[in-house]
Amino acid sequence: MATEGTTHHSRDILPEPTLHRLPWYLAYVSLLRAAGIEYVSSTQIARQINVDASMIAKDLSFLNIKGKTRIGYEVTSLEHVLQDFLGFKVGHNAVIIGVGSLGNSLIQDSGLTNYGLNIVAGFDIRPDLEGTSICGVPIYNIDELHRRLPALNASIGIVTVPVERAQEVSDLAVKAGIKALWNFTPFRITAPKGIVIQNTSIYSHLAVMYNRLGAGNTK
Amino acid sequence: MATEGTTHHSRDILPEPTLHRLPWYLAYVSLLRAAGIEYVSSTQIARQINVDASMIAKDLSFLNIKGKTRIGYEVTSLEHVLQDFLGFKVGHNAVIIGVGSLGNSLIQDSGLTNYGLNIVAGFDIRPDLEGTSICGVPIYNIDELHRRLPALNASIGIVTVPVERAQEVSDLAVKAGIKALWNFTPFRITAPKGIVIQNTSIYSHLAVMYNRLGAGNTK
Repeated sequence: MATEGTTHHSRDILPEPTLHRLPWYLAYVSLLRAAGIEYVSSTQIARQINVDASMIAKDLSFLNIKGKTRIGYEVTSLEHVLQDFLGFKVGHNAVIIGVGSLGNSLIQDSGLTNYGLNIVAGFDIRPDLEGTSICGVPIYNIDELHRRLPALNASIGIVTVPVERAQEVSDLAVKAGIKALWNFTPFRITAPKGIVIQNTSIYSHLAVMYNRLGAGNTK
Repeated sequence: MATEGTTHHSRDILPEPTLHRLPWYLAYVSLLRAAGIEYVSSTQIARQINVDASMIAKDLSFLNIKGKTRIGYEVTSLEHVLQDFLGFKVGHNAVIIGVGSLGNSLIQDSGLTNYGLNIVAGFDIRPDLEGTSICGVPIYNIDELHRRLPALNASIGIVTVPVERAQEVSDLAVKAGIKALWNFTPFRITAPKGIVIQNTSIYSHLAVMYNRLGAGNTK
């Protein structure tokens, strides 16, 4: 998966496609749990999600859980193990870098908290934003990133600046101690070895969608 | 790219990896244009973006533009051709289905407009949201989707409901005339042939990032 790739870091490398599929299983298993279903087989998950049963069994083999022959996995356990394994149950502190339209939106999106992401501060270049707060999240000047980061205990920097600033603020964030950059800009940022880069290219997804719809003809 | 895949639809199928890379080139070329640079070679783009020059030349061969030997592509033309080709210059009307935290955020994210996406209405099940508006975008009851869609002239449905509603509202949207589903839930929705599905799994991206950071140990 080159386009959404995470780079660097070598310990415990789980295949990225597996990591992308596990949240799908989690979503389905959570539904089953809510519906009061007790057991689920990989065949059942396969039918629902449209992925090969053998691939599901392989993906789940990375987890510390065993299914029972003919019965399958216990739904509640599988849900917990998946949440745990995916890191959704632990709070990961993050800072927003670039409190424009998208940065603002992400701060307000309380859904991220359910997946373990706590946005603890925003940083921006605009002087009028300094000292304000959004949904209780304080906004500081970008110059303060280095000084404030240790107390914020955040290892994730969410990059939501305009594209021409993407590399510059990423460098700044890494210097300040950020260990992972979640890049929402369409710019291909680079970072020293050991720094995790995750690209979420929603504009690329728009481009694919437009093209499949027949770009140019659609209203 | 199985995990972020678009399914169905057969005419003018451009390779999805190409469609994902083109916005990167556009981002870089826009920077060059802003910096007053007149020409760029695929080698230069390659160096900046960390993609093989031959791959860039191949990707750009899908566009109706020719570079000059030794000089490269004219920056302004390349920017225009890319924007055009990617459908970012045409307005695509879309409706938000599920005006919760994320749906709300996307309505407020004015950045999407720069990439050709006009959110023209929101639909939700909550009676208290009916008749309200967010940044001028009217919110209707989900029951009205079928009746209102023709006048809204929207072919894209952005699915931002809770995961357990994802399939249900997708079916509803398709019945109402929606041609493309932009799915932000972690649920693997299915749709009849001919309907475009684009998954943007930000939670999957979180999972990858947590894992690469060393899931469980991070604060």
